[in-house]
Amino acid sequence: MAPSAPGKLVVVGTGLIGGSFALAMKGAAIVGKIVGVGRSRGNLDQALRRAIVDRAYTLDEAWTAELADAAFVLLATPVGEMPALFAAIAPHLGRATIVTDAGSTKQDVIAAARAALGAAFPRFVPGHPIAGSERSGAAAASVSLFHGRQVVLTPLPETDSNAIDRVRECWTACGGIVSLLSPERHDALLSAVSHLPHLLAFALIGELADRPDAADYWRVAGTGLRDFTRLAESHPDMWRDICIANATRVRVDLDAYRQALERIDAMLARGDGAALGRLFARSRDARAAWLTGARGSDDVE
Amino acid sequence: MAPSAPGKLVVVGTGLIGGSFALAMKGAAIVGKIVGVGRSRGNLDQALRRAIVDRAYTLDEAWTAELADAAFVLLATPVGEMPALFAAIAPHLGRATIVTDAGSTKQDVIAAARAALGAAFPRFVPGHPIAGSERSGAAAASVSLFHGRQVVLTPLPETDSNAIDRVRECWTACGGIVSLLSPERHDALLSAVSHLPHLLAFALIGELADRPDAADYWRVAGTGLRDFTRLAESHPDMWRDICIANATRVRVDLDAYRQALERIDAMLARGDGAALGRLFARSRDARAAWLTGARGSDDVE
Repeated sequence: MAPSAPGKLVVVGTGLIGGSFALAMKGAAIVGKIVGVGRSRGNLDQALRRAIVDRAYTLDEAWTAELADAAFVLLATPVGEMPALFAAIAPHLGRATIVTDAGSTKQDVIAAARAALGAAFPRFVPGHPIAGSERSGAAAASVSLFHGRQVVLTPLPETDSNAIDRVRECWTACGGIVSLLSPERHDALLSAVSHLPHLLAFALIGELADRPDAADYWRVAGTGLRDFTRLAESHPDMWRDICIANATRVRVDLDAYRQALERIDAMLARGDGAALGRLFARSRDARAAWLTGARGSDDVE
Repeated sequence: MAPSAPGKLVVVGTGLIGGSFALAMKGAAIVGKIVGVGRSRGNLDQALRRAIVDRAYTLDEAWTAELADAAFVLLATPVGEMPALFAAIAPHLGRATIVTDAGSTKQDVIAAARAALGAAFPRFVPGHPIAGSERSGAAAASVSLFHGRQVVLTPLPETDSNAIDRVRECWTACGGIVSLLSPERHDALLSAVSHLPHLLAFALIGELADRPDAADYWRVAGTGLRDFTRLAESHPDMWRDICIANATRVRVDLDAYRQALERIDAMLARGDGAALGRLFARSRDARAAWLTGARGSDDVE
């Protein structure tokens, strides 16, 4: 069934993630032709100009005809759009086509795939490349976006092991460091290290912006606030979808964080500089150890 | 009274801020000799090697003998150390010596100065250069640290207007953009845009680090968490002092933030993606407008 020539890749969502994946796949010669599908013609034209894709369709054009002989389909849209996309691709997939995604949440995406894909569901390999996302669009795509980045796959007991291997090869060719987690564990970990921090950044800026004298605050705000809130540059719709999709878990982490703030408020109330200083020092050490370890693992892989 | 030759500057705390001020003062030829005072001989030696200071004393040496003919004294230590320093310098200041500081909180520093300086209090000009501070030490000092940065002075009704003018000239010569605020207003604004964000970053890392399976979280954490928590690289003792000094106001802002989180939790609980999306979009727009405005004012000044 597998073609001897490199197969075709269909990327739905040719933004930062989808576009970077396409560039890396072409660079590694894992796929031949690349078809891009997206909402806006402007972004697709950009993807064509940069030779990220060979052909491009908007979602209201006849793109599903490209699926029958595709080796891979990558869905790289906001997770809220994926249920409709799984329903759209299901009737048109080839019998060997492998489907994967780059969604930031996994349990909801898997539920949508299970509901729509039928017999093709075992050839769906859920994935999540953990790479920066405040920049967006094909213009920001880069062949090296995934170099040294964690890529988590969350296959299910029924997922075809050959499909897992092939998707793993793709991400390894992108320079990613592939690991496997259960969907539940992925969503729990990402809630704490990504979804909650985004929400906290949006919340802080929103609270300041709502003050009647907000302009006075912006005037004295420095690089600290800028970096602390860089996550609030991220796409509002994408992060709304993520937080709603993973709401149950995000609320668990938000609750833990609010309890941590309550403990700190108590330290401030009683002027307990010793306890506050210990907390700050422990946090600084933990962060330094994390980043040293992260650099270490990059060096090794 | 004023010497015809450029006067002498005594910098207590020759770290990032004090060292950078010294470099900029020497570059602008506003002062002649520069005397550095600090806790650690190692850092002072670094300051001497880099020609940041001409002479250097540790705090247990006879540095106060340098004060009688000093034109300026800058205190650039953590705010918690300032009460003892004001008490140490008070008996030795020259009759024309102008004292200023670079503390991140102003009401507590002013109270300490008022208690110690006596007749010299009108020649104390409270100040705060708003410049990054996760890096530290004379090794990190830079002549351009304050270029385009806000520098807030918070003089009191009794502060000598000539002293204000001279300190303003110093910071302008450093490339800073000087503005005047009341101490109360300064502490309120900085609480929201700096003190609280630091506390929130330390809190998030601390909460994650306390989990028994913290290593799993670090493994999948990306650049988002790294940037969001960069403030937790800051010096724990310095930020403990700041948060305790400004605890009343920080608790007001922490309370406002916790209420904002409570509203977001309610949106998540009822799956209200529309409200969450609006909040995220408004926050992103407000942040973009702030940063566009900030760049604009840099261009103008």
